[in-house]
Amino acid sequence: MSNSANYLLINTSIATMHDVNARYGGLIENGAIAIEGEKVVWVGPADQVPTEFEGWDKRDLGGALVTPGLIDCHTHLVYGGNRANEFEMRLDGASYEEVARAGGGILSTVNATRAASVEELVAMALPRLDALLAEGVTTVEIKSGYGLDLATERNMLLAARKLAELRPINIKTTFLGAHATSPEFKGRDDDYVQHVAKEMLPALAAEGLVDAVDGFCEGIAFSLAQMQVVFDAAQKLGLPIKLHAEQLSNLGGAAMAAANGALSADHLEYLEEDGVKALAKSDTAAVLLPGAFYTLRETQLPPIELLRQHKVNIAIATDSNPGSSPLTSLLLTMNMAATLFRMTPEEALRGVTINAAKALGLDKNTGSIAVGKRADLAVWDVKSPAELTYRIGFNPIKFSIFGGILRD
Amino acid sequence: MSNSANYLLINTSIATMHDVNARYGGLIENGAIAIEGEKVVWVGPADQVPTEFEGWDKRDLGGALVTPGLIDCHTHLVYGGNRANEFEMRLDGASYEEVARAGGGILSTVNATRAASVEELVAMALPRLDALLAEGVTTVEIKSGYGLDLATERNMLLAARKLAELRPINIKTTFLGAHATSPEFKGRDDDYVQHVAKEMLPALAAEGLVDAVDGFCEGIAFSLAQMQVVFDAAQKLGLPIKLHAEQLSNLGGAAMAAANGALSADHLEYLEEDGVKALAKSDTAAVLLPGAFYTLRETQLPPIELLRQHKVNIAIATDSNPGSSPLTSLLLTMNMAATLFRMTPEEALRGVTINAAKALGLDKNTGSIAVGKRADLAVWDVKSPAELTYRIGFNPIKFSIFGGILRD
Ligand SMILES: [Zn+2]
Ligand SMILES: [Zn+2]
Repeated sequence: MSNSANYLLINTSIATMHDVNARYGGLIENGAIAIEGEKVVWVGPADQVPTEFEGWDKRDLGGALVTPGLIDCHTHLVYGGNRANEFEMRLDGASYEEVARAGGGILSTVNATRAASVEELVAMALPRLDALLAEGVTTVEIKSGYGLDLATERNMLLAARKLAELRPINIKTTFLGAHATSPEFKGRDDDYVQHVAKEMLPALAAEGLVDAVDGFCEGIAFSLAQMQVVFDAAQKLGLPIKLHAEQLSNLGGAAMAAANGALSADHLEYLEEDGVKALAKSDTAAVLLPGAFYTLRETQLPPIELLRQHKVNIAIATDSNPGSSPLTSLLLTMNMAATLFRMTPEEALRGVTINAAKALGLDKNTGSIAVGKRADLAVWDVKSPAELTYRIGFNPIKFSIFGGILRD
Repeated sequence: MSNSANYLLINTSIATMHDVNARYGGLIENGAIAIEGEKVVWVGPADQVPTEFEGWDKRDLGGALVTPGLIDCHTHLVYGGNRANEFEMRLDGASYEEVARAGGGILSTVNATRAASVEELVAMALPRLDALLAEGVTTVEIKSGYGLDLATERNMLLAARKLAELRPINIKTTFLGAHATSPEFKGRDDDYVQHVAKEMLPALAAEGLVDAVDGFCEGIAFSLAQMQVVFDAAQKLGLPIKLHAEQLSNLGGAAMAAANGALSADHLEYLEEDGVKALAKSDTAAVLLPGAFYTLRETQLPPIELLRQHKVNIAIATDSNPGSSPLTSLLLTMNMAATLFRMTPEEALRGVTINAAKALGLDKNTGSIAVGKRADLAVWDVKSPAELTYRIGFNPIKFSIFGGILRD
């Protein structure tokens, strides 16, 4: 395949994921895709290729399935250290106090992240990013939130930007200063929130490091009122917002996020019908994170059937992080969404393509195969798109295409 | 590294998995391993390497962790077709009848397997085998059981033998004619069991295709008395036995397997204390299959604490099969054993090394790093062995060694 110029993918089945009302967004059995530069300029049945594209270089995919490149719309991929020791202590029967005394929990990651340079953060994140990339992921969101001070939050966002230079992948950064109160502000949550909203966020946004702003709204983290302070600051800067909401209890975070026009509300195990309705009335996507549900052995299921009924856009993501979801496979996330949440294979694929794009505000550019969108594509050695969700711990990728350019 | 002759692995930490009473079987912080031909001839601390090995070619592992090559001791890796369609129908809300009418269930796999040639079975199994191999697996057990007639059971076992020629991996075959009654014997279970024991097994054993004999003892499959017929036939031929037992109910299969001197009893969710005691009194290993537990959304946990108390050897395996465990990652199996069964990372690693070797009767040859055993080794880019179990959907392998020869 040429690495630039114009070409035609032929002999392929295509799950376009574009039309909300069609199965797999419009499934084309024997299709073709015309790519000009970084964009798709035509997609449809092979026997209807317009004459203007017929002379282009052809790439025969041998019947392989093409989907949009996958999108992991919620990760904490950049961090220092890992929590294998804490994981092992817990399973060996250590008490909560013993784990805490050994430096367990989020603060162990904060300490390891603060101790790392940008270069070290990049080096540690790269194998995780490569694991995603190897599964046809073309867009990844990466949150800060393990620094909790300006210098380290900045380092995390710089590391995320650097990763986008090192690999053919689109990375969206999210500032998550409001992840937990920093040790320096212990017992002064409101002061920390002011610090996040008035000092850290404006400084990082001024450097162009922030694509969106997120927070953790929960009994053990920040209240609705505290999150509103952060959201007000974000909106003053014209930045889109997201929210970790209803993971452990129902505080009404999703409805509050929707009222603020958030891109997404994430987790949502404890979401109830009023929250679902609030999402349905907005453009706010529901981002479900089955890896955290699995790792935490959660039993409260997110309200899938209500989300379906109210036609909320459901995305799924790895939530890749060292504590509650050390997961770096979006294909496995799809299987978990089906096995644990009873989402259909079609919903799972929408969740990592068009709906994930919506959760990042990127659906005009990517997330489905349609004229005018980026040619971010994944090519799979499978007969039906359901196989992507059905298998566990298996990667049937043939290759992927990022902005028209072959990746492998 | 030389591909033959003698060499020394240096600058490595080693989880030997050999001593039952030592953590990770004896964890050597800065160790060395001397390899002569296909065998380990010395292992120990780097500062104690005997002078006779000091002049050998050295391979510096840069501090990487070495474990025994992993062993997947229970798989159904060879089969025709897949069950993605059935998986999707179920999640789309189809009734049991609709799935059955569409040809779902084990019979769909039997039909697809019967329709395939040996070459096709090999071609379909190879990507699954390669997925295991890429995670440092050096021994895989493969069962027949989707033919249920002599010709197809033979084809499956031939395919398994062929796979061992195509890849640097040790494959042990298990004849599982007593997986389900064949359609031809419908309603005549006892006749089918006689056919398995008196015709199929002797014919396949005479061809040297059978390393062990297995069966499915369950209310929906075969009774204790029926399995005894198969076991008697196996023992007459001098073949070791195994049993799928206590997966859905407690029939006493594990105790019956132990009384027959079986290598292993497998699944065991419904095992109770008397069964645990029977295993403890025998050399029969308990093989747990968290992938099936996960896929079937089972809630009945195998009795881990009782198995621990009674010092039963616990192995874990993928159970890789198209219906209840389309899983091809032994690393993910380790995480599932910890997350779902609360096994410790050390137990998980024993479960895919020395205890898996015991479940295959191979513990004299492989499964731990010890003088005189095969140099079947996996080299990992991790700091502690717990990391192998902690991560989800991530493969930190550097390379692996099969009988002294580098694989990559
Ligand atoms: Zn998160
Ligand atoms: Zn099995």
